[in-house]
Amino acid sequence: MSKSLGALWRDRFELDNPALENEAADPAVETLLAHRTQRLYTDEPVPAPVLDTLIAAALSAATKSDLQQVSFIRIRDRALRGRIGALLPGMPWIVQAPEFFVVCGDNRRIRRVCALRGLPYENDTMDAVLNAAIDAAIAMQQMVCAAEIMGLGCCHISHVRDHVETIAEMLEIPDHVFPISGLCVGYPAREGFVSVRLAPSATVHTDRYDDSRLADEIDGYDRRRDARYAIPAEKYKHTGRFGTPEFYGWSEDKARQMAVDDGSTMRAYLEKAGFALA
Amino acid sequence: MSKSLGALWRDRFELDNPALENEAADPAVETLLAHRTQRLYTDEPVPAPVLDTLIAAALSAATKSDLQQVSFIRIRDRALRGRIGALLPGMPWIVQAPEFFVVCGDNRRIRRVCALRGLPYENDTMDAVLNAAIDAAIAMQQMVCAAEIMGLGCCHISHVRDHVETIAEMLEIPDHVFPISGLCVGYPAREGFVSVRLAPSATVHTDRYDDSRLADEIDGYDRRRDARYAIPAEKYKHTGRFGTPEFYGWSEDKARQMAVDDGSTMRAYLEKAGFALA
Repeated sequence: MSKSLGALWRDRFELDNPALENEAADPAVETLLAHRTQRLYTDEPVPAPVLDTLIAAALSAATKSDLQQVSFIRIRDRALRGRIGALLPGMPWIVQAPEFFVVCGDNRRIRRVCALRGLPYENDTMDAVLNAAIDAAIAMQQMVCAAEIMGLGCCHISHVRDHVETIAEMLEIPDHVFPISGLCVGYPAREGFVSVRLAPSATVHTDRYDDSRLADEIDGYDRRRDARYAIPAEKYKHTGRFGTPEFYGWSEDKARQMAVDDGSTMRAYLEKAGFALA
Repeated sequence: MSKSLGALWRDRFELDNPALENEAADPAVETLLAHRTQRLYTDEPVPAPVLDTLIAAALSAATKSDLQQVSFIRIRDRALRGRIGALLPGMPWIVQAPEFFVVCGDNRRIRRVCALRGLPYENDTMDAVLNAAIDAAIAMQQMVCAAEIMGLGCCHISHVRDHVETIAEMLEIPDHVFPISGLCVGYPAREGFVSVRLAPSATVHTDRYDDSRLADEIDGYDRRRDARYAIPAEKYKHTGRFGTPEFYGWSEDKARQMAVDDGSTMRAYLEKAGFALA
């Protein structure tokens, strides 16, 4: 490590940022800017004090109105891990990772607190779901930041939401609690790679939302990204339905993914879990 | 700084963790474990390279299926900032902070990508909202982690969602984009304090969700927290309606908050913004 911030910016966006060229990065900040998703881990277990530190980091994150609406479910039982992994066979790292958490938005606890205090819960709104989801995501990400700074690698598994009913049943997740993501944690066995992202000029706005230049932004991003690593032809999605274009970039890949209904059942799950979503 | 992990655990939970007592913390990890919400800032501006670094950190965070569903709106215009601040007069730090962002879940960009590629968007589900909200929360939190490591302080403003229509109009936020939070950033003018959190035994489960001991957990937490800083009587909520109890702890405070409808309009906003929520 010890790249300049300019080099880190170039790695992330495939763009120059002259103002950062001679700026040194704090080592931990460098780790955050050089984030890599890690899907392959060594066999080294995560020591208990390290695990406690990750949990303390997660629970130290800000929480809306101090309502503390996150629950972590740590999956230690290997058979149970295998059953979750079997739902997502394309992701063997769920089973292989030394640690695996299912991270949940938890609106149940605060409802129980109301009941314990003899008061009604009067905010059964759509925002009850968003509050808990955002609280949980913030806690999860603070765990990831701490993990990466401590030399661990992580992989979020948002696809647990594709099997939300089954996983909720396996983990005895009660009403008003919903998984937002799985999280694999372990010591990385590979270096991994930095994923090139959309330019900040496409994602950071000033004073008003303005995406009037989006078509050009996407085109430039597709080309820059392709120059770094072209998507191999065997990974083109839905070629039977959408064909094989001459140029297949990020936008083509993501549009094809979004053009096919992934059959999400989150709405039905949330209603069954007792949310009014008002 | 340079506390043991055990001391940081005690600060956060008001509990001992003997296994961490003699463990040293990496300075950045210590910063994350010692997170403090900062609402008062010096006049020192955030230098442009630091701001770019925060943006690079945010955009470096993991993103579901590489869909990159976050938009940051940086509010530079002081008059505009004043108008947002006027909506939440109890939070003068919105106006005072050197930097203020409105962080948005952005499902519009990927829909436009579909249109640019001539493909339909076929995932207009509840999960479209959750995906964008969680993506945005993850990016925001990675920005906060980088900021705190760099000596800045932050304050999330989830209450922007209480005025979501007005703020969306002010910032010309289009359909399929929704604010999840504001974020104040600046150099802290006060030390701040570490907020005591629920014990990990209440929020971290193993293999199955189990809150059978919640009543005891809440009672213990109320007492530990009260010993650190008792809620002053002038801050008791809704005393006209719910009275003045002998002991007023976290659970009483939060139950009272949740017992009064805060009138969230997020559902109506999301529908008006074009989400099918299927």
